[in-house]
Amino acid sequence: MPRTSVPLPLCYRLLNHGPATLITARAGGSANIMAAQWVMPLDFDPPKLAIVLDHASRTRALIDASGVLAVQLPERAQAHMTWRVGSTSGAGVDKLAAVETFAADAVDVPLVAGCLAWLECRVVRSTALDEVAREHDLFVVEVVAASADDRYWRGDRIALDAVQTLHHLAGGRFVASGDLIDGRQP
Amino acid sequence: MPRTSVPLPLCYRLLNHGPATLITARAGGSANIMAAQWVMPLDFDPPKLAIVLDHASRTRALIDASGVLAVQLPERAQAHMTWRVGSTSGAGVDKLAAVETFAADAVDVPLVAGCLAWLECRVVRSTALDEVAREHDLFVVEVVAASADDRYWRGDRIALDAVQTLHHLAGGRFVASGDLIDGRQP
Repeated sequence: MPRTSVPLPLCYRLLNHGPATLITARAGGSANIMAAQWVMPLDFDPPKLAIVLDHASRTRALIDASGVLAVQLPERAQAHMTWRVGSTSGAGVDKLAAVETFAADAVDVPLVAGCLAWLECRVVRSTALDEVAREHDLFVVEVVAASADDRYWRGDRIALDAVQTLHHLAGGRFVASGDLIDGRQP
Repeated sequence: MPRTSVPLPLCYRLLNHGPATLITARAGGSANIMAAQWVMPLDFDPPKLAIVLDHASRTRALIDASGVLAVQLPERAQAHMTWRVGSTSGAGVDKLAAVETFAADAVDVPLVAGCLAWLECRVVRSTALDEVAREHDLFVVEVVAASADDRYWRGDRIALDAVQTLHHLAGGRFVASGDLIDGRQP
C-alpha cells in the first residue's frame, strides 16, 4: 500500500468526517498507543486539530513530556486492534509490541502500519491552552506532516470506495463509513 | 416521530461517532442556523462538548451574546438543507425562514424539526476558555438537556438501522453512516 504525501492545507480532509483515530507517542525511550474518537480539525492553514487526551492515560504522559504525537486513522479491518489498544492500559504493558510500526517523517513517534492516514503533530502551547489542557484534557496540536494510503487519498480528497473509516459509538461498537451523498443536489 | 428524553450522562453517545451538526442560536429577537462538522464530546458527566465556531459567522455572534445554543443532528434526508444553511450567510437573510423549528426545553433557542437528536447547551466560561475562544474559535459548552427521535435513541444507545447520520467530507459532499462493526470480536 504506497504511502502518499498530503498537502498540509488539505490535511483536515483526512479526518473531517469524524473517524476514530489511534494516537501514538514516544518519550524517554518509551512509546505507547491509544485509541481516540474525540479528535477534530480546528483550523486549515496552518492545520490544527483539537484532541481530548485523558490525563490518566500513559500516552498522555508521553505527549506531555515530548510535545509531539501522531494521529492515524485505522481502517475497517483494524477495528479489533483499535478496540484492544483503546480498552487496555499501557502501564506495565507494551501495547505496541503486537502492532507493526514505522518511523514518522517529521517527529520522533512510531506510526502504525496499515492505517489509512497519518498526521504528525506538535502540541501548541500558551498560558491559556496549557490551562485548558490541565482543566479539561483538551489539547490543540499543529499538524507538521501528513500522509495517506493512496487508496484513501486521491487527487485532493479522500476516497471511501475501496476502504472504509471506523467511527466509535461506545463500548467497542463502531459504525463504518457508508455511501456518499452530494448535499449540493436538492 | 416521537421525541424521547436522553439521560445527560449518556448524551455523548448521540454524537460520539462524529456526525455533522446544525447549530442554532437566538439573541435580541434574532435567530440563526449554521452547519458545523467540528463538534465533539469532551466530557461525560456533566456532559460537555468542544465546538469550533467561526468568529465571522452570524450564529457565533448570537451565541457570544446569549451564552446558549443548540446542537442537532440532521438525518440523511436533510443533507441538502444542511449544505444550504452551511454555505450561506445569515447576514441580511433569515436562514431559518425555510426551516421548521420548535421551542427547546431548557434554553431560549429554536430546535430544528426532523433532526435525529437535539443537545441544548450553555457556553462554559473562564479566563482561559474565553481566550481560547477568541484566539482559536474553540468553545467548551455544557449540555443541559438532550432528546432524540425514538428511531435514533433506543434503550441506552443510538440505533443506525432505520436512520443514518451525515458526516461532512468537504464542499457539500457527505458520507452517511454505514454498517455496524463489533470491535470486541477478533
